[in-house]
Amino acid sequence: MLTTISERVSALRHYLETHHLDAFILPTADPHLGEYQSEDLLRVTWLSGFHGENCMVIVTRDKAGIFVDGRFTVQVKQEVPDSVYEYGDITCDDPKAWLTDRLPSGSCIAIDASLFGIKWYQEAKAFFEHKGCELVSLPENPVDLLWEDRPAAPCGPIELFTGSAFSCFVKRDRVSAQIIKSGQDALLLTQPEDVNWLLNIRGCDIPFVRTAMSFALVQKNGSVDVFIDTDRLPEGFYQHTGEGVNAHNMAMMPSILEERVKSLPRIQLDPEQTNAWLYNLLVDAGAIPEFALCPVAWKRGCKEGIELEGMRAAHIQDGIAMCRFLAWLDGQVKDGCEQDECTLADKLQQSREGVEGFVDNSFACISAIGPNAAMCHYEPEPTTARKLGQDGMYLIDSGGHYQLKGDLYGTTDITRTVKVGSVSDEQRRRYTQVLQGHIALDDARFMPGTTGMQLDTVTRLPLWKEGINFNHGTGHGIGHFLSVHEFPPRINTNNPYGALEEGMCVSNEPGYYLEDGYGIRIENILAVRKAGDVNISMLAFEHLTFVPIDTRLLMPELLSGSEKAWINQYHQEVYEKIAPFLNEEETVWLKKATELVA
Amino acid sequence: MLTTISERVSALRHYLETHHLDAFILPTADPHLGEYQSEDLLRVTWLSGFHGENCMVIVTRDKAGIFVDGRFTVQVKQEVPDSVYEYGDITCDDPKAWLTDRLPSGSCIAIDASLFGIKWYQEAKAFFEHKGCELVSLPENPVDLLWEDRPAAPCGPIELFTGSAFSCFVKRDRVSAQIIKSGQDALLLTQPEDVNWLLNIRGCDIPFVRTAMSFALVQKNGSVDVFIDTDRLPEGFYQHTGEGVNAHNMAMMPSILEERVKSLPRIQLDPEQTNAWLYNLLVDAGAIPEFALCPVAWKRGCKEGIELEGMRAAHIQDGIAMCRFLAWLDGQVKDGCEQDECTLADKLQQSREGVEGFVDNSFACISAIGPNAAMCHYEPEPTTARKLGQDGMYLIDSGGHYQLKGDLYGTTDITRTVKVGSVSDEQRRRYTQVLQGHIALDDARFMPGTTGMQLDTVTRLPLWKEGINFNHGTGHGIGHFLSVHEFPPRINTNNPYGALEEGMCVSNEPGYYLEDGYGIRIENILAVRKAGDVNISMLAFEHLTFVPIDTRLLMPELLSGSEKAWINQYHQEVYEKIAPFLNEEETVWLKKATELVA
Repeated sequence: MLTTISERVSALRHYLETHHLDAFILPTADPHLGEYQSEDLLRVTWLSGFHGENCMVIVTRDKAGIFVDGRFTVQVKQEVPDSVYEYGDITCDDPKAWLTDRLPSGSCIAIDASLFGIKWYQEAKAFFEHKGCELVSLPENPVDLLWEDRPAAPCGPIELFTGSAFSCFVKRDRVSAQIIKSGQDALLLTQPEDVNWLLNIRGCDIPFVRTAMSFALVQKNGSVDVFIDTDRLPEGFYQHTGEGVNAHNMAMMPSILEERVKSLPRIQLDPEQTNAWLYNLLVDAGAIPEFALCPVAWKRGCKEGIELEGMRAAHIQDGIAMCRFLAWLDGQVKDGCEQDECTLADKLQQSREGVEGFVDNSFACISAIGPNAAMCHYEPEPTTARKLGQDGMYLIDSGGHYQLKGDLYGTTDITRTVKVGSVSDEQRRRYTQVLQGHIALDDARFMPGTTGMQLDTVTRLPLWKEGINFNHGTGHGIGHFLSVHEFPPRINTNNPYGALEEGMCVSNEPGYYLEDGYGIRIENILAVRKAGDVNISMLAFEHLTFVPIDTRLLMPELLSGSEKAWINQYHQEVYEKIAPFLNEEETVWLKKATELVA
Repeated sequence: MLTTISERVSALRHYLETHHLDAFILPTADPHLGEYQSEDLLRVTWLSGFHGENCMVIVTRDKAGIFVDGRFTVQVKQEVPDSVYEYGDITCDDPKAWLTDRLPSGSCIAIDASLFGIKWYQEAKAFFEHKGCELVSLPENPVDLLWEDRPAAPCGPIELFTGSAFSCFVKRDRVSAQIIKSGQDALLLTQPEDVNWLLNIRGCDIPFVRTAMSFALVQKNGSVDVFIDTDRLPEGFYQHTGEGVNAHNMAMMPSILEERVKSLPRIQLDPEQTNAWLYNLLVDAGAIPEFALCPVAWKRGCKEGIELEGMRAAHIQDGIAMCRFLAWLDGQVKDGCEQDECTLADKLQQSREGVEGFVDNSFACISAIGPNAAMCHYEPEPTTARKLGQDGMYLIDSGGHYQLKGDLYGTTDITRTVKVGSVSDEQRRRYTQVLQGHIALDDARFMPGTTGMQLDTVTRLPLWKEGINFNHGTGHGIGHFLSVHEFPPRINTNNPYGALEEGMCVSNEPGYYLEDGYGIRIENILAVRKAGDVNISMLAFEHLTFVPIDTRLLMPELLSGSEKAWINQYHQEVYEKIAPFLNEEETVWLKKATELVA
C-alpha cells in the first residue's frame, strides 16, 4: 500500500511514464464544482496530505507543486512535505505558468476534465497550446487507480422530501415554461441542490449538505432525465416526482445525453457550474449550448409558504439551543472554568442535539477564542485549541439542519461574539460599529430590483468611517434543508447581478478582524419580505434568528436612538419567542441578556 | 421654401419615391451620439416641429410616426401636428415594429447610419431582414438636401487650452502606453470631450459644452489623427499638441481611416459611443475592432493639480453668484413681488455674469415654482411661467463654465430648493429626508474600488424607509470646462461598472417629486479625495459647492446629532468662503442663512 506522500507521488509518476504523459494537474473539486466533497473525492488530500480548500496540485515526472490561497499558506507547510512539493500561491502565481516553466515544448499535460470549469479548461488549453504543449483529458482519474483504500462512494439514504411549497410536477411545469420562454430545448442541471429541489428529494452524500449527488436534464416539455445512484432511490420515487421523470445511473449519463442532444440540441447551462468534461461531451454530440444563470437556482432561492414556515421553525429550535449554550457559557466564565474551543463547540453540538428536530450541523463549527477569531475560517483542533481565561471575546459561528413536525424543514447559520473576559475600549468600539452595520442592513427598506451589492455598502459605512473594513461578503443565501451557502443571492461588494427577491433567505454577517488580536462577527439570517405598510411596493427583511446579541460588549454612547430602539425591539422579540422553551435558570439568563439598552 | 411640417414631410416622401425607398428613420442624434446637438443638426425639429430629446421620427410614403419618451408626451402633442404624425412611446412601443406593421415585405428602409449606435443598427438590420425588409445606409442625409435655410455648421473659435494638469504630449504618451498594454494598435476617440481633453483644446460648437466637434485616432506610438474643422484651428496648434499630431478635415476621415487600418488593424473603440457608419467603415476596411470602455474617458475623469484648483475656484465664483441671487430672491418674496420662473432664471444669469470669469451656462437653467418642480427636466417658457406667491417651494438647478486668472478653469452645477411661501409638514419631512440622503453620501468614506452604484444606496435609504424613491441617478460626473454631464463616473442604481477614483468630480443630487405637487432636489458637486486621516487608504469626498442649504424647510426633530453637525459645519465653511466677496446686505443674509441648526 502507498502510505507516504512520496510513495503516492512516485506511483503517479510511474503512471505518467507508462502513459507517455508529462504532468498531471489535480484540483480540489468534484464534478459538480461544489463547495464540499465526499471522502472518496478527496484526491488532493491523498496525493499531497493537504486538507484545505481551493487547492491545485501539479505533478510532473520530476517536480511537484501545490498551490493554495492566502488562508492556507501556514497549513500547507504543516501538512505537505516540502521534500516532495514546492508551495505556490494560487491567486498570485499562475500554476499553468509554473508548469510550462518546468516542461519542454511538446509535453503532454493530463487532467480529469470533470474537475475543471469550462473557462479554466478553455484558457488552459489555449495557454498550453501557445507554449507548444498539449492538454489531454484522461478517460479515468489516475488517483482513483492508485488509491487502494479509497473510501466508498456515498451510500446514505435518499429520501422523498415533503417540506416543499410545490410538488415536483408543478415545479417541472414552471421550469418547462422558463425553458420555452428562453427559446431553448432543454436545461442542464449540474448542481445537486437544483436537482434535489426540483425533484423534491434530499440526501446526505456530502458533509453538511442535504443532497443526493445528481445531474439532470430538464426538457422543454417538463420531462427530466436524472443521473443519480438509482440503487438508492426510495420506494415511491416515480409516484412522488410524477410522470416524465426517468432516473439513470451516473454511468449512463454520456450515452443518454448524446441521445437527447440529437432531438434537443439547444441546451441551456450555467458555464460557472458545468465541468469541462460534460460540456465537451455535449458539444461533441452536437449541442448548441446557451450560457445563462440557472433559472432553477433563482426559483429555489425564493422560499414560499411551508418552506418559510420551516425556516422560521428551525430558527426557533436553533435559538433555544443557542440560548441554552450561551447561558451555560456565561456560567463557565463566571466559575472560571477553562473550557477550550473544542469543548465549547461540543457543548453547543450537544445543545442542538437536545432540541426538537435537529438532524445535522450545516457546516463545521467555528469556535474561536481571542486571536483565533481573527481567522475567519478557523476550525479548532483538540491539541491546539485555545482555552477560556485569558481573552476578552469568543466567536462562535455554527448552524444546523432541522426536520420538524408538520413537514417543517429548515437550515440555520448564526454567529455570536460573546464577552468572556475583559475587553478594551477599542474592542467595544469595533463591536459597536459591527453591530451598527448589522442593524443598518436589517433595518433597510429597498426598492424591488435592488441587488445585494447595492445593500452591502450600508453594513460597511460605520467601519469605513473609521478607515477599516472586513474582507468577506456581508451575506450569502441559505438553502431550505439543502446547502447553508446557497447561490443566489449574495450580499457583497463584487456581485452586481441579481436582485434580492421576496422569499430569499440571506445571512447578515458583518465583522471586524484584527490579525493576532481578536475577531468580531454578528450574524443573523433574514428573509426578504414585502414591506407592506408603505405606499409603494418596497421590500424589507424579516429576521429569522432569535438569539441575544451580547450587549456587554457595546459602547452605548456610539449608538443613535434608533439603533438602541432596534436592539431593544429585537431583544424583546427574542425573549418572547425563546423564553417559553427554557428552564427557570435559562430564563433568568435570557431576561438579563435581553435587558434594555439605555 | 418648405415652411410647414406637412410640406417638409411631403418633400421627404418625394425623395423616398425618387430613390425607390419606402421609409426613412431619423433620430435626435449627431455623429458623436452626444447629449446636445448644434443647430444645423436639429433635423428632427425641422422635419416634425418637435424640440425635445430622445426622439425618433419615421416617415413612409403614406404614414409618419414620432416616438418620444414619457417626459415629452405632452410636449410632442403641442409641437407636432397630428394631421401628419402618429404619436408613439419610444420606451414602450418599438418604432421598428410600428414600421414593419405598416410596410410590406420587400420594403427598403433608409437611414443615415452616422446617427445610430452600433447595437441599434445591428439589431435593426436583423429585425428588418427577418421581416423581409432591407435596411439601407444612405450616403447623404435627405433632410440636409431639403432644408433650404439650414443654419451654418458651428464656426466659433477653437482655443488652445492652458488649464490642464498635463501637456498634450504627456497625455498622448500615457494613452499610448494604455493602447500597447491592451494589445491594440490604435484607439478611436468618438467623443469631442475626449479629443479636446487629449489635445488640450476647447471650443463652443454646441450649446453648453466647451468642445470643438472632432474625432481622433490615437496610434499605439502616440501619434494622433484628429478630424476637425481645420480652418478654425488656432495659431500654434501644432506646437501646442506636439510632434505626431495631424489634423484633417472631417471629409478626409473615411480615406484616412481606411489607410490607417491597413497597418493598424486592431482598433479599440467604445461600442456605446461609436456610430454605425464609422464602425462599418472601419470593419469594411479590414479593422479588427476591440470593444472596451474608452481609457481616455477614465483618465479625463480624474482631475489633478491645476484642474482641481480650477474646479474649486469656479465653485467659489458660482457660490458668490448663487448667494447674491438667493439673497435677492428672499427680498422679492418678503416684498411680495410676483417674479416668474423666467425672470428668476434671468436674474441668476445676471448674477453669474456679474462675477469674475463667467463664460457661459453649463446647461439650460431649470427654474421651477411649486408643481412645476415635480418635472425633473422642466424648462420655463415666458408665456407659461409660474409666478411666486402661491407656492411654498422653488427649485433652481443651474450651472456655469468659468475661466479665471492663473489658468483656472472650471464647471459648476448646483440645485437648491428654497422656501418661497408656506409649506406643509409633509413637504418639510420630505425635504429633510432628501437632505439626510445628501448628507449620507457627502459624509461617506469608502474603500478604493467602490462604485457609484454601491454608494447610491446610502442617499436613498432615508426615502426608502418611508416607501418613496426618486427616479433619477444620484450623481453624474462633471467635466473640467468640458461637459456638465461627464462619463465616467455615475452614482446610480444601474451602473455597476467603474470605481470612483481620486480626482473624479461628481454631483450629489437626491430629490423627491410629487406629481402635480412639488419637487425637491439638493445638489452639490463633490470631488473624490483621499480620506487621509485613517489607517488604510480610504476615499472620501471634498465638497466643491458652497451655497447655503435652506434650513427653513427642515424638520430638525428628524435629524440626528451628526446630521445637524454636518449642516452646521458645512454652513460655517460656506460663510467663511463666500462672505468675503459679498456686500453688507448680502453678508447679513448669508449670516442668517448659515445660522446654526439646533
